[in-house]
Amino acid sequence: MDQEGQKDEVTLSQFLDAVAAGTATPGGGSVSALVGSLGAALVEMVANLTAGKKAFEAHEAEMKKIGEEAHSYREVLAATVGQDMDAYRAVMSAYLLSKTTEEEKKKRREEIQRALKRAADPPLFTAATSLKLLKLCQKAVEKGNPNAVTDAAVGALLAHAALQGGVYNVLINLSALEDENTVKKMKNELLRLELEGDKTKEKIMAQVKEKMNLE
Amino acid sequence: MDQEGQKDEVTLSQFLDAVAAGTATPGGGSVSALVGSLGAALVEMVANLTAGKKAFEAHEAEMKKIGEEAHSYREVLAATVGQDMDAYRAVMSAYLLSKTTEEEKKKRREEIQRALKRAADPPLFTAATSLKLLKLCQKAVEKGNPNAVTDAAVGALLAHAALQGGVYNVLINLSALEDENTVKKMKNELLRLELEGDKTKEKIMAQVKEKMNLE
Repeated sequence: MDQEGQKDEVTLSQFLDAVAAGTATPGGGSVSALVGSLGAALVEMVANLTAGKKAFEAHEAEMKKIGEEAHSYREVLAATVGQDMDAYRAVMSAYLLSKTTEEEKKKRREEIQRALKRAADPPLFTAATSLKLLKLCQKAVEKGNPNAVTDAAVGALLAHAALQGGVYNVLINLSALEDENTVKKMKNELLRLELEGDKTKEKIMAQVKEKMNLE
Repeated sequence: MDQEGQKDEVTLSQFLDAVAAGTATPGGGSVSALVGSLGAALVEMVANLTAGKKAFEAHEAEMKKIGEEAHSYREVLAATVGQDMDAYRAVMSAYLLSKTTEEEKKKRREEIQRALKRAADPPLFTAATSLKLLKLCQKAVEKGNPNAVTDAAVGALLAHAALQGGVYNVLINLSALEDENTVKKMKNELLRLELEGDKTKEKIMAQVKEKMNLE
């Protein structure tokens, strides 16, 4: 898959084929980022279906801001799809380095560790950005056009799935990382993101059910 | 957005733009179906990274079957993206019918009810298929190449989000449907899908954490 054209040129169908193929990229990390981007697009949609309408004048300025924030998350998460693939490929390349001499072994090990550390960045970014997006979904549910409440709700489901998907993809990288300090710090950060994500999602879903008169 | 070319021609970027736009389609229903399709592609990926490898010979036949089943879910869920858009557009067209005379009012009301009933089908299909996919994810987690366990895990997160997204999109349709019998029957079916989905997801996530040595 062409990286440069990743976001602009690849069709849905081609991307699905590339995921399904028996190659390591694009995998769960890239797909998590894309799903976060889709969730952000749904929040933008809600903002666009709310702003400019007389009935929601009171929230006009806030909805515009929500739309802009969602747009920026959509862009950065879409860019993360390709970044995750690049980072993972660097890990695979490092594992393929020659390991005949002691020096080569040492160099290979260092390269692997460096690549693993870098490969944790895209999914960590996905997880952290998806938590911000999840909080934005809450505002979209609360103040958005009620006719679009399910769109905001699906946005929240996707933001939460992207967050958790990002967390798993960082964790799998950490499992081969030797720098215990980094591992410990990252694990704490992941746990915080997970807990806050779960709590926020639960709140949103209760609000959605209320808005949809399901309770 | 061109429907015919929906799946084959639309780029990721164009689809994200179309979701974000202040138009009612594609919305949460279509995006849920796409996310289910992405989840299915991840299960296919796991099957492809498992089948044909000596280390997993024991599960060879089963993994091939899992890959085929995932492929079929990927295809039908991708097709549902466009079907959901069509069905929702039919609802909007029905609401736009003339309502000057009593006869027109009656016809409009009937058309709306008919369109609403049909519009519940794509998201219901998404929810039901995503539950099947979720169960397939469990097999992929259990018997797939452990190096791809996070891909199977993300597949499960997406299948669960697509299931719940489908459920919300059926429910919002039901809220305007007058046929109480259909509403009651569908609500029961949705509740069953939701409960079984939650239970299955919980089981899978426990297995994933075990496989990833997180507990």
